[in-house]
Amino acid sequence: MAKGIPKRAEDYSRWYTELVQRAELADYAPVKGCMVIRPYGYAIWEKMQSALDAMFKATGHVNAYFPLFIPESFMKREADHVKGFAPQCAVVTHGGGAKLEEPLYVRPTSETMIWSMYGRWIHSYRDLPLLINQWCNIVRWEMRPRLFLRTIEFLWQEGHTAHATEPEAVEETLRMLEVYRTFAEGFMAIPVIKGIKTESEKFAGAVRTYCIEAMMQDGKALQAGTSHYLGRNFAQAFNVQFQNQEGKLEYVYATSWGVSTRLIGALVMAHSDDDGLVLPPKLAPIHVVVVPIFKDDTERSAVLEKAAKIEAELAPAWTVRVDSRENCSAGWKFNEWELKGVPIRIEIGPKDVTQGQAIVVRRDTREKRAIPLAQLKDFAAAQLVEMQTGLFQRAAKMREERTRRVDDYASFKEHIEQETGGFALAGWCGSPECEAAIQQETKATIRCIPLDRREEKGACVRCGKPSDGRVVMAKAY
Amino acid sequence: MAKGIPKRAEDYSRWYTELVQRAELADYAPVKGCMVIRPYGYAIWEKMQSALDAMFKATGHVNAYFPLFIPESFMKREADHVKGFAPQCAVVTHGGGAKLEEPLYVRPTSETMIWSMYGRWIHSYRDLPLLINQWCNIVRWEMRPRLFLRTIEFLWQEGHTAHATEPEAVEETLRMLEVYRTFAEGFMAIPVIKGIKTESEKFAGAVRTYCIEAMMQDGKALQAGTSHYLGRNFAQAFNVQFQNQEGKLEYVYATSWGVSTRLIGALVMAHSDDDGLVLPPKLAPIHVVVVPIFKDDTERSAVLEKAAKIEAELAPAWTVRVDSRENCSAGWKFNEWELKGVPIRIEIGPKDVTQGQAIVVRRDTREKRAIPLAQLKDFAAAQLVEMQTGLFQRAAKMREERTRRVDDYASFKEHIEQETGGFALAGWCGSPECEAAIQQETKATIRCIPLDRREEKGACVRCGKPSDGRVVMAKAY
Repeated sequence: MAKGIPKRAEDYSRWYTELVQRAELADYAPVKGCMVIRPYGYAIWEKMQSALDAMFKATGHVNAYFPLFIPESFMKREADHVKGFAPQCAVVTHGGGAKLEEPLYVRPTSETMIWSMYGRWIHSYRDLPLLINQWCNIVRWEMRPRLFLRTIEFLWQEGHTAHATEPEAVEETLRMLEVYRTFAEGFMAIPVIKGIKTESEKFAGAVRTYCIEAMMQDGKALQAGTSHYLGRNFAQAFNVQFQNQEGKLEYVYATSWGVSTRLIGALVMAHSDDDGLVLPPKLAPIHVVVVPIFKDDTERSAVLEKAAKIEAELAPAWTVRVDSRENCSAGWKFNEWELKGVPIRIEIGPKDVTQGQAIVVRRDTREKRAIPLAQLKDFAAAQLVEMQTGLFQRAAKMREERTRRVDDYASFKEHIEQETGGFALAGWCGSPECEAAIQQETKATIRCIPLDRREEKGACVRCGKPSDGRVVMAKAY
Repeated sequence: MAKGIPKRAEDYSRWYTELVQRAELADYAPVKGCMVIRPYGYAIWEKMQSALDAMFKATGHVNAYFPLFIPESFMKREADHVKGFAPQCAVVTHGGGAKLEEPLYVRPTSETMIWSMYGRWIHSYRDLPLLINQWCNIVRWEMRPRLFLRTIEFLWQEGHTAHATEPEAVEETLRMLEVYRTFAEGFMAIPVIKGIKTESEKFAGAVRTYCIEAMMQDGKALQAGTSHYLGRNFAQAFNVQFQNQEGKLEYVYATSWGVSTRLIGALVMAHSDDDGLVLPPKLAPIHVVVVPIFKDDTERSAVLEKAAKIEAELAPAWTVRVDSRENCSAGWKFNEWELKGVPIRIEIGPKDVTQGQAIVVRRDTREKRAIPLAQLKDFAAAQLVEMQTGLFQRAAKMREERTRRVDDYASFKEHIEQETGGFALAGWCGSPECEAAIQQETKATIRCIPLDRREEKGACVRCGKPSDGRVVMAKAY
């Protein structure tokens, strides 16, 4: 157990907050509710960005940058949108020493700004589809901040696309949802459920919100990405029309989709343990740490020489760090790199040098094996691949164990209210009243209506009225 | 000459603004003074970021992210800093529907925020040096906005480093200045002068500001990057001390350095012509455009097949676009890709297919040559290298032609006031009064005291008092 960090079983919430700070992923900033993403945490974000950006570009998107400040009048153009976002906004009232004529909202999301520009750029069907993404900072006032999960300012990407037809826009919405699933499962090693949000949980201004939902180690759900089909709501609010192939004017169809630095929080909560971070190799800033062990100068030079050789051999494929600091013990270093979640640790001492081997320890399984130096490169590569898959399988198994099909309200409450929580798959009549009552009575919300659910005649878990199929309910972050 | 864009000789300023918009690099945003960086402009920024980021990492820096909002009280801790920046700030007074207890400044630069965090992180000499960079958006209120050059919001990187000793911090300041020079000359193909800013032009809060100064095609100077030695000013303001190797507490030495999206403006103004953008290959979003030319279906399939082969052959090394649109003429396409500054255009028609060749046209020299298809790959590669060097040489030649050593005020004014302006190398007595008078009388400012200037006993160009060497004076952006 890492010093000063409670065990997960004792206090999961404090475990998370302490771990994030102790592992130097993030720190609270002087302004309440804001965070600093420290270099080690930012390095994970860079890996996430790089993987996602490549997938966005492979699906035909380009990046751009739109202004931070949105005129108040713009926010008000789409009725649902302003209702949902205005209360969360930070407002600039003064600039350059003078009071502004019109207050400026710091963007809580950029639909209004972007659609005002799309109105200038889109004229004909030849200008469509327009497939733009933006990487930027976002501000939403939060009263109960939590590092990465809920902060006043966070980093994200927001895709905003414009299409000539509804089917094309819906296809895009689902394509990006699938990109998010691929990323969550393939890179973050977190299994997710693709689904549709209920009316009360959908994005303010959307026709339909799709999401991916993940389960954390405490059984709670975490929304890990959303993709919105916006219909013609924003095109109408900003009067964005195009001339179709028949020469007629039509409103443009829209989508928007985003994931944020919240994913770093999800990554921590999904895999890490009482000793510190456990990071899937594809997103780990450092893959391999080499810890040379020696007592005197003779041992020192022999061991450091081999450590450098190991680094040289592994570094072309992996990010390798040799920790040759002399002011701390090997044990102290082991703890530190476990705290930081480096997937593979290689220990090499004088005995290992003589025997032409090194000790390889995997962060997730703690498996410790002596490996001949000649095989080290291949062994490390295989272990990293295995660890990536292993973490996914472990998370999938945990989710399976904590997911239960329930058919009556007593079983539902029993499942939801237990220590480790979990997902309840239950019938729902479709009424917002039952949805609200469930939340009030159990703190669980409808996470989503799964896209792949089977039709299943049943009853609403609360009111008993007919239900067409099961939804995912859980307590959530 | 590109349609709707004035010639440089007619109206250089309008040429620039129109070109930036017509080439779809950027657009004015609905909030006065803000800009939208459009995908083609942002693609240049991505290339700049990628090259700079690699250089920052190669010199030992890591990235992080600090908050957008700075408490008013923080800004006030360093006296010169607040005096310089407060009048330019946007201020958030309301958040989450309520008036804030303390107004928040939208960051105009992050020294105060970052040094408040460094105070938490730095304790011992073992924590030093701390070498952090941040890519982010910045807000400085601008009354006379200009796309890329002066906008209320812009994107930049800001490095902030902490050191145990003054020599180490000064070395870092100069190292990063050299990184900027390497980038400006090696990637942007713009020769720059490294120098020191005068007291009146230095960064608010710095001990000394170093800069690189470039010359634009109208002879005006443009500051293309700054690197500040901050001494212990911010460490003292935020009480950041470390225990040195002897166990004594000392204040930390600081540097900060930055370049911004302003560089995109510099890139346009340095190389482009009356037909549109001219981009150095290392920063061009598209290196080669292939324009297939055909009249009927038979020609069409033969020509498109060859165009696809050319793309396949060049694409591994370069970004290639085949423009096979059928709703516009070849001539129209030529104009469009010239406007966009694509370095190499390859034309291929039925006659070329028969003769096993293609026509290659270089954007900067307009050289047009028929090249056998088998040699196309090597020829394109050689042309791109030549163009990168050629643009630098052309810019260096222009700078040389427009730089003049002047020894009396009349010659100085004559040189500065001519249509195409230029750099004047002149003696200066070192007094702020002469500096201010020169600016008032000629609109020229002291751009920098060149780092490599020779000692040269002479006289101040304005007052005649002794001068130790020449400074660079010019009108500037």
